[in-house]
Formats: sequence, structure tokens, C-alpha cells
Amino acid sequence: MALIVQKYGGTSLGSVERIKNVARRIAKWRAAGHDVVAVPSAMAGETNRLIALAREIQPQPDPRELDVVASTGEQVTVGLLSMALLELGLKAKSYTGWQAKVLTDSTYTRARIVSIDESRIRRDLAEGCVAVVAGFQGIDAKGDLTTLGRGGSDTSAVALAAALEADECQIFTDVDGVYTTDPRIVPEARRLHTVTFEEMLEMASLGSKVLQIRSVEFAGKYKVPTRVLSSLTDPLMPVEEEARAGTLITFEEDPHMAMEQAVISGVAAQRDEAKVTVRAVPDKPGIAYAILGPIADAHINVDVIVQNVSHEGLTDLSFTVARADLPRALKILKEQVQPHIKCKEVTGDDRIGKVSIVGMGMRSHAGIASKMFRTLAEEGVNIQMISTSEIKISVVIDEKYTELAVRVLHKAFELDQE
Amino acid sequence: MALIVQKYGGTSLGSVERIKNVARRIAKWRAAGHDVVAVPSAMAGETNRLIALAREIQPQPDPRELDVVASTGEQVTVGLLSMALLELGLKAKSYTGWQAKVLTDSTYTRARIVSIDESRIRRDLAEGCVAVVAGFQGIDAKGDLTTLGRGGSDTSAVALAAALEADECQIFTDVDGVYTTDPRIVPEARRLHTVTFEEMLEMASLGSKVLQIRSVEFAGKYKVPTRVLSSLTDPLMPVEEEARAGTLITFEEDPHMAMEQAVISGVAAQRDEAKVTVRAVPDKPGIAYAILGPIADAHINVDVIVQNVSHEGLTDLSFTVARADLPRALKILKEQVQPHIKCKEVTGDDRIGKVSIVGMGMRSHAGIASKMFRTLAEEGVNIQMISTSEIKISVVIDEKYTELAVRVLHKAFELDQE
Repeated sequence: MALIVQKYGGTSLGSVERIKNVARRIAKWRAAGHDVVAVPSAMAGETNRLIALAREIQPQPDPRELDVVASTGEQVTVGLLSMALLELGLKAKSYTGWQAKVLTDSTYTRARIVSIDESRIRRDLAEGCVAVVAGFQGIDAKGDLTTLGRGGSDTSAVALAAALEADECQIFTDVDGVYTTDPRIVPEARRLHTVTFEEMLEMASLGSKVLQIRSVEFAGKYKVPTRVLSSLTDPLMPVEEEARAGTLITFEEDPHMAMEQAVISGVAAQRDEAKVTVRAVPDKPGIAYAILGPIADAHINVDVIVQNVSHEGLTDLSFTVARADLPRALKILKEQVQPHIKCKEVTGDDRIGKVSIVGMGMRSHAGIASKMFRTLAEEGVNIQMISTSEIKISVVIDEKYTELAVRVLHKAFELDQE
Repeated sequence: MALIVQKYGGTSLGSVERIKNVARRIAKWRAAGHDVVAVPSAMAGETNRLIALAREIQPQPDPRELDVVASTGEQVTVGLLSMALLELGLKAKSYTGWQAKVLTDSTYTRARIVSIDESRIRRDLAEGCVAVVAGFQGIDAKGDLTTLGRGGSDTSAVALAAALEADECQIFTDVDGVYTTDPRIVPEARRLHTVTFEEMLEMASLGSKVLQIRSVEFAGKYKVPTRVLSSLTDPLMPVEEEARAGTLITFEEDPHMAMEQAVISGVAAQRDEAKVTVRAVPDKPGIAYAILGPIADAHINVDVIVQNVSHEGLTDLSFTVARADLPRALKILKEQVQPHIKCKEVTGDDRIGKVSIVGMGMRSHAGIASKMFRTLAEEGVNIQMISTSEIKISVVIDEKYTELAVRVLHKAFELDQE
């Protein structure tokens, strides 16, 4: 008998029939003797519909009011899912974010959870009730509605699991787990049975849509055992089987596991970035700030930054930004920065791809980077930029080689082997 | 400089363009120096859509959960209307029912307002803010969401006006006021500039869709000057003109007004009732209860009840019910009541119409009833049942004469004359 928090994404709730299937799945876990807290997202498409409506009224919607509007999507699904559970004869009760006392800061549209008072939910669970808690939303200290931003329901679920000290947080989504790479690029991609928190964090930051990065951070901070699994399977598949399905995010490195573990866990690809290069700037203190300060002031996020070694007192500085931000970044550099620093030219390139390998194993294995670079060189793929962390190596390459790079790296690191 | 509460119905908010028009109307009142509290309904059709969705999940939706779902309609419109006001450069802030502290009892789906803590709204008004408060919804003492039932936004608006001691509550709807009768039946029908609270109450109970009966009761209890007016006029019509538009519900009988006032104010027609007759029952104590008790137990509302004088110890008892309830009422009487009382037969007639005349003036004028009956007799309309109150006389007639009766009564009481 365990306490399980189950998060269901919008696709899982996209129709009346799917909502009923979610209820059947929950009923199965209840029948097996477990306490269940369900955290539904809005029905697929609903949040987009509401935001589009708001934008028709106000092209730049007021953030406070946008949250009032957008948070209704989850309020509808908690009510509907509770009805579906009641219709199956279960005890069930819905909670909005504020009813579950999900206290957040006041950063409308991307608020952060400060605390959850789980006492009322705990009382209802003790009475055999399924608690159905709205994801994505909370309330700030002033009593205003807030939302947690895109994918915020993942964070709601993990935060609830942390507050309730749940045995597991199950994220039901439309993929059946975390893969070694995108199966659409590499058909041999394998589902990972476990992935460490650190790897998951890198993968999330590399654009994996499986889990929102903040939910992974939350899981790591509170050591919430979190499992990603599919909501598209038979809702009545045996509980024992479902309990082992998907991918479990782990925290302790099991020494036994570590020996068997592959050196790297996955290969990730991103093609939504663009590269900016400032050529032949004087290599002197403060130059990086002179270039990147105005970019940050314009709220443009910068990802990889590379500064080459200086040559005759001049250096090149390159960085990547979201592709959509490239024109704005170039404008700022040409109009606000170039007149003040001496540089030869400012160029942009939006035809780049970023390919990364991620793995806890690389911490204790030498030569991973060189193996990566050699593999790419053998295929004639030129590396434009390199960025590394303790468990990740990213390279920026010509966009047209992105899929090739993923395939050869997946094979070189034997990710297709169990 | 006055404090005005303005309620906007679903039709007034049925599209983005209409929401913007509502904002323009509010802006106009603000520009004229008035404080405005706006109470929007859900966008036209939205509440029905949400209820239909709930019924697909659970044919008899759980009332608590239904309120969670249904109350989102107004939450969306308070957000959107606030955005539209902000976009016009006004200060504006939305409130859900619970944020405005609209405390209700726990009768989900038709809760009654217990109190409103208007202090936060008052603070925002003092800062020059338009307060946009969700109609139709509240919160009970347990912290559960509640809704006030169909048309509940009218009640929300009047209750807010009472709590804020507003100078006027303006109900913007898709008709431009209260008429002497249905203009679709009598083209000469006139809009009333004023109507007394008591008359409005009778009209609402006679099926006038202009105002929900509970909002009229609320207006009466707290003496809230309430004006019904159209939201389909030019939103920029001069404030002075709009302030005199529509129909104002009054409370004090102005002696000067009363002298000029017509004897009756309006003629109402209803064709959604059916008549049940229990023939030749023993005329003894308890018989009305024996017949009507089981009907009430089945939650069937009874309107007109007539018991004829007894004849040889036997009497006939007739009453009207909503037409949709007729089959159920007959079944109950035949299966549960007839076996226990001696009666000749139980019959039903769903081809009846009810025509009523309403007017404060009839209190001080004799002969109103006889004039009504004579007018109908002259047209060969047979009266089947009669029911009276201090300011209303209703007759039940053959349905096919309903419109004829309305027309001749409207003319006989000179309602077409200013």
C-alpha cells in the first residue's frame, strides 16, 4: 500500500472517452490498495485556445489576467475527472490550486511554488478519497491566481508528491519513457529503464519534451522518485506491470548499477538555435560583458558561449540564442554594441544544429569527448562550437548534419545495445 | 459621481468584439467620473457547453464537481473583460467569486448568497480601478466553489450593489427594458420607464426572462435601485441618455407617480404549464395533502391550485405543473394516490395557456378582475382556472386563445397608451 501521485497530460485528457480511461486507470490503482492523488493538465488544446482568445482582446495580455483565464483549463479537468471517478463508484474530490493551497510567488504566467499545505488532501486520502488536484496553477500571498508556465503540471505533481512524501510520482504522458535518443531519427533508440536525476536535467535542458526542466529540478531537490510512463496503454494493464513500466528517475547511484551502466545514456539534438559571431574584437577585460550585457537586458537567453584564443590581441566571440531571437540579437549588436567596441563584423547563422551526449558514466570514463569528436570527424562533420559540463558534451554543427550526427553517435556509444 | 454596478449578460459577451464593446461602455462611464463594478456572465453558450461536457462524463453530474466546472465560464470573462479595459488604458482588476469573498450556503448548483466582504473591491475602486467581478459564483464556508443557478449573475450584481451600497445596479441584457407585454405578440407593447419591485417580482415569477426572480427578491430586500437596459445600443451613447434608458425598478410608491400610473403595468403569458384535474374526490380534511404531498415529494413544482366548492360531498381539485412534468405527475397520481383515495378520475391537459395581468394600481382600483373576465368573455374565451394575488390576476385558458387574450387585455387596459 503506497501513496502515488499521478500526473496526466493534456493528450491523455483530450476527450470524454480518454478522461474515462484515466478514471479507469486510477480505479485500478485504488483497487490494488494504493492511495492516489491525480494531477490533470487541461484538455489538449484548451490552454492554447484560451491564450489565443486573450491575445485577440489584448495582443500582449496582462499577465495577472492571463493567469485568471488560462487556469480555467485545469479547473475544468479536475471537475470532469472527479465526476468520472464518482461515476465508477469511487470517492473523489477536486481541488483547484488555491484549494490545495499551492502557494507561489507572484511571477504571473511562470510562478514558482513556495509551499503546499497538504493537510486537507491528506485528510481526504485517509477517508479513501481520490484527490484530484489541478496542475499548472497556484495562488500568491495576495490571493491572486498564478500559473506555473508551460508544462507546469509536471511541476505541480512533483511538488505535491514532495509535500505528501509520496512513494512515487508517475508522469503519464504520450511517450512511454525516456529514450536513448529521438526514435524518429534513430529507429534503434532504446527506452531507458532508469535515468539519473542529473542526466534527466541535462536532457530536459537540451529540449527533451518528456519532462519540464523545473519539475526535474523539483524532483532532484526533494528526491521524489519520479516515473515517466505512457497513458496510451491499456488502462487495465496489471498494476505490477505498470509499476515497472516507463523510465524511473533515480537519485542514488547504485554501485552495482553503475558497473553495468553504459557510459552515456542518451544523445539529444536541437535545431531551434542560431549562432551569433562577433569577429575580431579587442581581447581585453569587459569585452564579453559589453557584448552580452545588452543581449541579456533584452531578455534574450544565451546558451553556448565560446571565446576563441586571442590572435594579435583580437578574438572572436560566438554564442547561440533561440532561432526566433536571432534578428533581434543582431539588431542590438549592430546598433548598440558595434559602435562602441572595435570589431570587424557581426554575423548570424540560423542553420546550425546542436548535438549532445549525456551520461553519468562519462564522469568516470576518460576519452568520451575524443571519441565523440573522432566519430563526427570520420563522417566529415565539422564542429563549430563545443560546450561541456560534467555529464554532457554539446557540439554545434551545420544543421544539415544533425540527424547524421545523432545516428553515428548513438551507434558509436552502443546505445542500441541493452 | 456615483458608484454603478453593471451586469453584462452572455449575449453581450458572445464574441471578442462584443467584449471590447462592453469595455468601451464601461470606459465611457469611467470618463464621466463614475466608479464602476462590472459583473460579467459567461460568454454566450459557454455554460451550456460545460454542462453538456459534464453530462457526457456523468449523466447526473455530481453537484460539487459540476460547480467547479461551470464556474470557469465566468472566470474566463472576468479575465478577458479586464484585459479589454486595460487595453483601453483603464485600470482594471478581475475577481473570481471567492476572491470577492461572495460567501454562499453549500447548496451546489443553486447556492444562496450569505454575505459579501466588499472591502478589497472598495480599496481598488478608491484607486481608480474598475473591479470586474465574476457573476454566478461564490464560495461556501468549507472553501468549496458554488454557483447560484441559471441567471445567477443578476443576483451576483444586485448583491454586490447592495454590499457596496451602490447608487444603481444596471443589468445590461439583450432587451431594452421591461415591456407592458411581449412585443412579439402585441406590436403596440410599450417599454415601461419604471416598474415597482412588487410588479417586477410577479412578472419574473410569470416567466419574464428579463430578470431572474432571486435577483429581484434581493433588489427588494436591500432596496437596490436596479435598471434593466440594452447592451446592444451604441456603447458610446451619451451617459446622460443611458442613465435614463431602459426600465428602473422602484421601491417607493411616489404618490405623484401613483396618480398618473396606469392601473396595471403589464400582461404576461405562459404556455409551458399543464393542468391536472382530480375529479370527484371526497371533500374531507387532508385530501389536498394526500394529492399534492406525493407530487411535492417528487420535486414537481405546482403553480395554480384550485379546489371547487363541494357538491354532494365530492369536489374537484385542479392544479398546474410545468408541462414537462405532466407525465410524471399523472403517473404518481394514478399509481400512488388513486388507489388510496376515492376519486372518479385523474386527467391531464397540456394544451393550456396562462395569462396574467400585473399592476400595483389594482390594489386601489376595484373592478379590475371583472374587467379582465368581461374582456375575455366578449371574445368567447372560456376561463378554466383563476388565481389572484394582491397585484396580479392569472387565468388559465385554452392554449389556442393565449395570444388573443394577451392582445385584448393589453388594449382593454390601455397599455398601448403612454
